[in-house]
Amino acid sequence: MRNIKLIIEYDGTAYAGWQVQKGPLSTVNRQQKRTIQEVLETTLQKILQEKVKVIGSGRTDAGVHALAQVANVHTHSIFSLQKIQKALNSLLPKDIGIRSIFQADPGFNSCSSARSKVYRYCIFHYPFASPFLERYAWQISYDLNIPLMKTEARALLGSHDFSSFCASGTGAKSKIRAIKRISVKKTVSCQLSAVRRPLLIIEIEADGFLYTMVRTIVGTLVEVGRGKLPQGSLRKILLGQDRRLAGRTAPAQGLFLVKVKY
Amino acid sequence: MRNIKLIIEYDGTAYAGWQVQKGPLSTVNRQQKRTIQEVLETTLQKILQEKVKVIGSGRTDAGVHALAQVANVHTHSIFSLQKIQKALNSLLPKDIGIRSIFQADPGFNSCSSARSKVYRYCIFHYPFASPFLERYAWQISYDLNIPLMKTEARALLGSHDFSSFCASGTGAKSKIRAIKRISVKKTVSCQLSAVRRPLLIIEIEADGFLYTMVRTIVGTLVEVGRGKLPQGSLRKILLGQDRRLAGRTAPAQGLFLVKVKY
Repeated sequence: MRNIKLIIEYDGTAYAGWQVQKGPLSTVNRQQKRTIQEVLETTLQKILQEKVKVIGSGRTDAGVHALAQVANVHTHSIFSLQKIQKALNSLLPKDIGIRSIFQADPGFNSCSSARSKVYRYCIFHYPFASPFLERYAWQISYDLNIPLMKTEARALLGSHDFSSFCASGTGAKSKIRAIKRISVKKTVSCQLSAVRRPLLIIEIEADGFLYTMVRTIVGTLVEVGRGKLPQGSLRKILLGQDRRLAGRTAPAQGLFLVKVKY
Repeated sequence: MRNIKLIIEYDGTAYAGWQVQKGPLSTVNRQQKRTIQEVLETTLQKILQEKVKVIGSGRTDAGVHALAQVANVHTHSIFSLQKIQKALNSLLPKDIGIRSIFQADPGFNSCSSARSKVYRYCIFHYPFASPFLERYAWQISYDLNIPLMKTEARALLGSHDFSSFCASGTGAKSKIRAIKRISVKKTVSCQLSAVRRPLLIIEIEADGFLYTMVRTIVGTLVEVGRGKLPQGSLRKILLGQDRRLAGRTAPAQGLFLVKVKY
């Protein structure tokens, strides 16, 4: 049996996430919207003419995007990789695309083999919203103390219990995760090289993420940045191990899964 | 009475264009979709509490976007410009945004005062479509002879009768327009600074444009680029003054009105 690895790009706007979430936030959407995993499985079954299970590197929440989600699938099919990729790209809805396809080792598992993941959160920091960034960024018009946000973010580096940054209702047994890298930086988007606009990008690499962890970290950093929480808050919230201490969860549309490392 | 000038950004995906078009192409959409002008007028009337007429620099077709459409409106209102802009941005749908607002001279007319307009057409030149460029570019996977497209484009520079590049059903009396600048160049998009992808940008500045003129020029240049039309075609088609000689009209979603000069 072959083990095929897929690198998948998707605009999560229209979906209830990668897989139906256990968390309470997606309850409303779950009834109407499909998941990325469902759509991939249905489409692959049409192409491969057999029942398949698509294993993703992890879930992404409703409305979250991916530039390079990784998944693998076991199949008896003898179709060439190129043929499978072409068929997928022509049958999948236009908001899901297969960027590349590989033959993987038999033991490769997108989820359990992953060493770390990189998530990027985009804040459009500008007085007015942009129609072109609406689906892909959190628009913030108030002032932010960015140097302070950078300093605060550093408190999260390393292995910690991230209970304070995890939505209730998660199924995870251990809340310990290791953040390898966290950066807060200003940049400019160039929307189709058309307009340059101020963006604030928060990027986090960790060995794993809890449910809504990135968005809760971002929401809390923003509250520090706008002066609603004092200097030293991130460290204190982390040590408190209580979700009620952290800030609000940043909206889903600014979040992108950008890389999974193996 | 004050004359107020607006710089408007919009994602045209959900609209039947700036104003209901006379051309035959939008007939189907016209029954369901609203126009940008309609939405602006309705919203302004709510804010200003008087009937207003929004004059645009020109129409954009169904599905075409604008980074800086210009419009003006006469009003008796004494509200500050900042207040009007804020009210508009909070009441308008999220796919329309007011980038800036100015007090204009009494005689200023967005349409008749315009000296030239710049349109940009984005082609995503890549083997597979991207979910993030779906609404904002024409995805082309076949080879293109870009140096030839550049040379051919030059034949259009200057004042000509552009009948060959104008959809039938237009109301324009004269088909003569002057192209001041036309460029064909490769670039990379950086979709929210996330992924760099090969784009081909065709930019045209002219004193005015006929109905579907940019898209017909782009469609014809692409046919030259892929070898379906021989070298020298653009000049021949232009001189022929017959729409049937030109290539197919490029899809609306790749087109952006980027600047109106006064």
